[in-house]
Amino acid sequence: MLDRVLNADSVAIIGASKNETKRGYQTIRTLLDEKFEGTIYPVNPREKSILGLKCYGRVSDIEGPVDLALVATPARSIPSVLEECGKKGVQGAVILAGGFGETGKEGRLLENEMLAVAKQYGIRIIGPNTSGMMNLKKRMNLVGLKDAPRGDIALLSQSGNMALTLFTEAGLKSHKGFSYYVGVGNETDIQFHEYLEFFRQDPDTRAILMYVEGMRQGREFLQAAYKTTIDKPIILLKSGRSSTGKRSAGSHTGALAGISEVARGAFTRAGIIVIENSDELFPAAETLSSLPPIKNRTVAILADGGGHATIAADNLTDLGMEIPLLSDKTQEKLKSILPAAASRPNPVDVAGGTDDDPSIFADCARAILKDPGIGGLLIVGLFGGYGIRFAKSLSLKEEDAAHQMGKMVRKYKKPIVVHSLFSSKYPHSLDLLRYYGIPVYDSLEVACKCIGVLAQYGSYLKSYHAKASFVLNWGRKANPKVQEMIDQARREGRNVLLEPEAKQLFRAHGVGIAPEAVATSAEEAALVAAQIGFPVAMKIVSPDILHKSDAGGVRLNVHSENEAREGFDTIIANAHRFNAQDIRGVLIAPMLEHGQEVIIGTKTDDQFGPVIMFGIGGVLVEVLKDVVFRVLPISLKTAQKMVDEIRSARLLDGFRGGPPSDKKALKRLLLTVSEIVEAYPDIEEMDLNPVLVHENGLSIADARIILKSS
Amino acid sequence: MLDRVLNADSVAIIGASKNETKRGYQTIRTLLDEKFEGTIYPVNPREKSILGLKCYGRVSDIEGPVDLALVATPARSIPSVLEECGKKGVQGAVILAGGFGETGKEGRLLENEMLAVAKQYGIRIIGPNTSGMMNLKKRMNLVGLKDAPRGDIALLSQSGNMALTLFTEAGLKSHKGFSYYVGVGNETDIQFHEYLEFFRQDPDTRAILMYVEGMRQGREFLQAAYKTTIDKPIILLKSGRSSTGKRSAGSHTGALAGISEVARGAFTRAGIIVIENSDELFPAAETLSSLPPIKNRTVAILADGGGHATIAADNLTDLGMEIPLLSDKTQEKLKSILPAAASRPNPVDVAGGTDDDPSIFADCARAILKDPGIGGLLIVGLFGGYGIRFAKSLSLKEEDAAHQMGKMVRKYKKPIVVHSLFSSKYPHSLDLLRYYGIPVYDSLEVACKCIGVLAQYGSYLKSYHAKASFVLNWGRKANPKVQEMIDQARREGRNVLLEPEAKQLFRAHGVGIAPEAVATSAEEAALVAAQIGFPVAMKIVSPDILHKSDAGGVRLNVHSENEAREGFDTIIANAHRFNAQDIRGVLIAPMLEHGQEVIIGTKTDDQFGPVIMFGIGGVLVEVLKDVVFRVLPISLKTAQKMVDEIRSARLLDGFRGGPPSDKKALKRLLLTVSEIVEAYPDIEEMDLNPVLVHENGLSIADARIILKSS
Repeated sequence: MLDRVLNADSVAIIGASKNETKRGYQTIRTLLDEKFEGTIYPVNPREKSILGLKCYGRVSDIEGPVDLALVATPARSIPSVLEECGKKGVQGAVILAGGFGETGKEGRLLENEMLAVAKQYGIRIIGPNTSGMMNLKKRMNLVGLKDAPRGDIALLSQSGNMALTLFTEAGLKSHKGFSYYVGVGNETDIQFHEYLEFFRQDPDTRAILMYVEGMRQGREFLQAAYKTTIDKPIILLKSGRSSTGKRSAGSHTGALAGISEVARGAFTRAGIIVIENSDELFPAAETLSSLPPIKNRTVAILADGGGHATIAADNLTDLGMEIPLLSDKTQEKLKSILPAAASRPNPVDVAGGTDDDPSIFADCARAILKDPGIGGLLIVGLFGGYGIRFAKSLSLKEEDAAHQMGKMVRKYKKPIVVHSLFSSKYPHSLDLLRYYGIPVYDSLEVACKCIGVLAQYGSYLKSYHAKASFVLNWGRKANPKVQEMIDQARREGRNVLLEPEAKQLFRAHGVGIAPEAVATSAEEAALVAAQIGFPVAMKIVSPDILHKSDAGGVRLNVHSENEAREGFDTIIANAHRFNAQDIRGVLIAPMLEHGQEVIIGTKTDDQFGPVIMFGIGGVLVEVLKDVVFRVLPISLKTAQKMVDEIRSARLLDGFRGGPPSDKKALKRLLLTVSEIVEAYPDIEEMDLNPVLVHENGLSIADARIILKSS
Repeated sequence: MLDRVLNADSVAIIGASKNETKRGYQTIRTLLDEKFEGTIYPVNPREKSILGLKCYGRVSDIEGPVDLALVATPARSIPSVLEECGKKGVQGAVILAGGFGETGKEGRLLENEMLAVAKQYGIRIIGPNTSGMMNLKKRMNLVGLKDAPRGDIALLSQSGNMALTLFTEAGLKSHKGFSYYVGVGNETDIQFHEYLEFFRQDPDTRAILMYVEGMRQGREFLQAAYKTTIDKPIILLKSGRSSTGKRSAGSHTGALAGISEVARGAFTRAGIIVIENSDELFPAAETLSSLPPIKNRTVAILADGGGHATIAADNLTDLGMEIPLLSDKTQEKLKSILPAAASRPNPVDVAGGTDDDPSIFADCARAILKDPGIGGLLIVGLFGGYGIRFAKSLSLKEEDAAHQMGKMVRKYKKPIVVHSLFSSKYPHSLDLLRYYGIPVYDSLEVACKCIGVLAQYGSYLKSYHAKASFVLNWGRKANPKVQEMIDQARREGRNVLLEPEAKQLFRAHGVGIAPEAVATSAEEAALVAAQIGFPVAMKIVSPDILHKSDAGGVRLNVHSENEAREGFDTIIANAHRFNAQDIRGVLIAPMLEHGQEVIIGTKTDDQFGPVIMFGIGGVLVEVLKDVVFRVLPISLKTAQKMVDEIRSARLLDGFRGGPPSDKKALKRLLLTVSEIVEAYPDIEEMDLNPVLVHENGLSIADARIILKSS
């Protein structure tokens, strides 16, 4: 559906101009210079022709059909411009002007007005507040950036400068280029996930590169990403950590971590390669669009100097790679190629063995790639510089090596990445490597990261499960009795479920909850406690009291009927002193056996919808923020990963001779929480704190559920 | 003393050659080409002359004095070559050959033999196994690397490839260069700290750049570094994390962290700028040798595009920088310079305000640097590219801005660092910036790091205390009674102090230890327990039992005389079952009041000598490895920093309504531990685990001291 927009055959330039400093001029100039394969219609009531092209007074004057309008007029004019476009049957519009939602309330109103017109006529909008759009296959450059290299990477960016940065890097440091560029701007109409869906299906796009500052519909994006990454890698840099990190997420559990932790986890789960360092953004895209992913995490290093090998080994280790010993066979082979002083186990250091003939690099690379224990090869050091540093004749041997290595990558389906100190001197051999899709960088860190992303993507593909999607089936597994309980709370004007209600909810979803009851008099409290069996815990039940301990509403280890009576009276008296109006009674429950404290929470994220949090209770959550997040729903496998991922995971295996915790029950509970959030869209957030995980089974010691404000 | 070596007036090339591929030829060629300002003496018995220079059969044949010998002959020949050099009165030798200690036992013997000859004749050795040495002021290039730029940075490296990397970067990306390069090789004779001392005093060196894989005498190096960094910055990259991380440190406390954590802490404390990413190594040195450090951590960002500003803000925040609001006055000034749409608070986004006249960058920079709340300025985006992208005439305005900004840095003594997308296109304006010492990088991360290291160095200088040095005064505060106790243990063939002895030691150094006694019979145990007052703790005392609990040697909460008798018998029986031979009795001590568990340990590091560790006991140390290290001795201020630095520091302030811990007593104990390790050089390691920190005071619950094996 975006095809007529992104692959337009005809473009009207609204606000066309003869002034060379105006976008309405520059865009036409660029389209002509770059030989746009469609028709250009300048529109400006005050001009007859621009750059030799007939100029139209109004869009409606144009004879033929118009697929796309580039609108270079100011913000205020946009609604009426779109009105005209709509009447003409224009499919899409690129709105350059700023001055909309990003500037405040007035701008937001204008943006809404614009969107209403667009919806009325079915016009799809790119922008506003965008640097524009390019379709490089069609030579449709509506941005005015010259020299953007063509290729198979689609670029989605919220910053024109970052696009310029990436174009420049691609041109200087690679043989790669772009199929499309879209400056998404304010995302008023077409959003990230729709572009993604388009690029997923585009046969000329092999990888998708994204620079994102914020996202409007995170869940839709994740769904589209999940479908995409199985075929094409997505490489994404999300900036704005520092300011968003400060933004408080409101609820108790949410306050523990910046939103970016949720985003990062969600992106990674959808198979997206998340980049932190902007220097690595283009190289990662270049590599992933050119080379086969590494199926395991094993890599070999081939070096002509110790320092580079050592740093590379450090970096690759930090990236989670293994640098295993080469097989005896491989080492034997290398022994026959290299001088005795060479180091062969891995890293391989040629020890001068390539000084007279750098084509020996190819012999070494072949021996290494043949090793079944090795998934990919990183070459570090001076390759490409032998002809420059030593003797010109060596250049030819380097070129020979480059041809051999390029073919090798295809034959063995294993990647090679090259670090070369001489990359910026542009020797022909390095050009040849790039021709074969082998990336070459003069930064060791970047070269290591290229290997790293191949391993990350390979691991993702290997562990991909088609079932684990992000679709929420709201309400599907809802229990009518629970729904009635929620509706009742609503009718009472509450947006909090009482502790007994919350527990009832979990019971309805198959979670074992110890028998408990609410007493409404001291006598009843004593009776119920005796039935349950001492010792018991007593807790106030009142929608007006959220934090029971703070209100003197909790008594633990109650040992006798007398204590129970006295406890009831004290708790109720405290509640009155707390000014609670609606007091329902006192919950009597058995004291729980000892277990490892954990905390499970859910909240509703602005960008990603329902999110679940898990951590080990107490100090570890509150002081060390040792928690993990996932966008809901989760699968059993994801629950497993959450439990394994916290830094203090070892505590669940039994610590200092203590018994291990029932991780199976814990994972089931995480799944049930996911199921419950899915079942009742009313739930805004949930706080199970603490949950006690025993050697067998677990107990939810306290549960708090907050409903969305209706 | 190294002056005659590093500033040699005459150099003998031993192993001179006519073969162009040999170092004995290349070095002479280079010295001639680069116009060495001293005398070259080729030495080779088989040649009459080389490259027009008279060739000597032996060193002793040379008529004049010889300061330095470059030895290009194989390893086996070195001892006899040095013998000849010694007789001739040569001051120093650069030994290129490998095949010494790095290859195993045989090589180590050869290395020792070589060193013995050198010591006999007072020859100082650079290397062996080195790429060589350069004194660029004197044009003495003994490495054979061409085109190394001259300048004021001294380079010490354990990798010739890293030196080549840094020379190449300096030439391509800066106006800076090097005063000296020394490939330290195996550090057989001259070690890092001696070179450092030389560069500290060298008037032509403004910064010292180091690539280190391992270090032989860490403490001497730290002492030299501490003296140096107050005058000249040291920038250091330490590689080999991954392998050294695996190397077990042997003792219990040491096993908690890789050695590099100790190194990193020690380097930082000595004011060294530690770099992790090799891309940032040269830029950090360039920046620190050119620009004034930032005294506070505040920085402003000036951008001509949102994306770069956002990423820069993220990066600077990660580096611990503040990006404060500009003052009202500064914002007013910017308002008068920039268009209304510009963002002024900080980051400043010019919003097109420089499109027609990029010299406006200088006006903005001036307004910002004048702001007393701002310590430095980072400019990100397209500066340098206005003339390239838009109109050639804008280049002149960019050059104007560059001149202004260069002068501004000097006037306001505040640094500017520039990120420019067009850096690799080499516009003249960027060249001008570099001429004024303003670094320009096309990597946002690198540019941010340049600002970061200026702030780090500035903070160090600001907090520098002359007293806090690393000199150990072994034995100065020793207590004769304690020394006698240690000697007694030695006489008994023990290298462990018993728990009562360890506590006695702390008592002797003024630490309050509760009264306790060792009982040797069940009856005595009951008596002593009654005297101390119930409840008591009982613990086995035996040099054969290191981990008392594991051997059934501990009873806690003993409440009566009967329990004490029974406990004594059980503990002794368990000790026999554990096959302990030397059983001294059972320690009876009062049960300690509740307190926050912490752990304090010391060990002796291979490279840095005595090291202290501190962490919060239990899960936090054992599972989350939340510990900090310092090289001993420490000052009160360092003790303070250790207590503040652990991630779980908040626990000491009272958690969940608990009382705060006595941090003053804790800091005093850390200092006392430092003092004790200094007092008794016999101590190899110490383990106070746990220490209970009360609201007032603290208790050492268990102490273990291990002596050096004699």
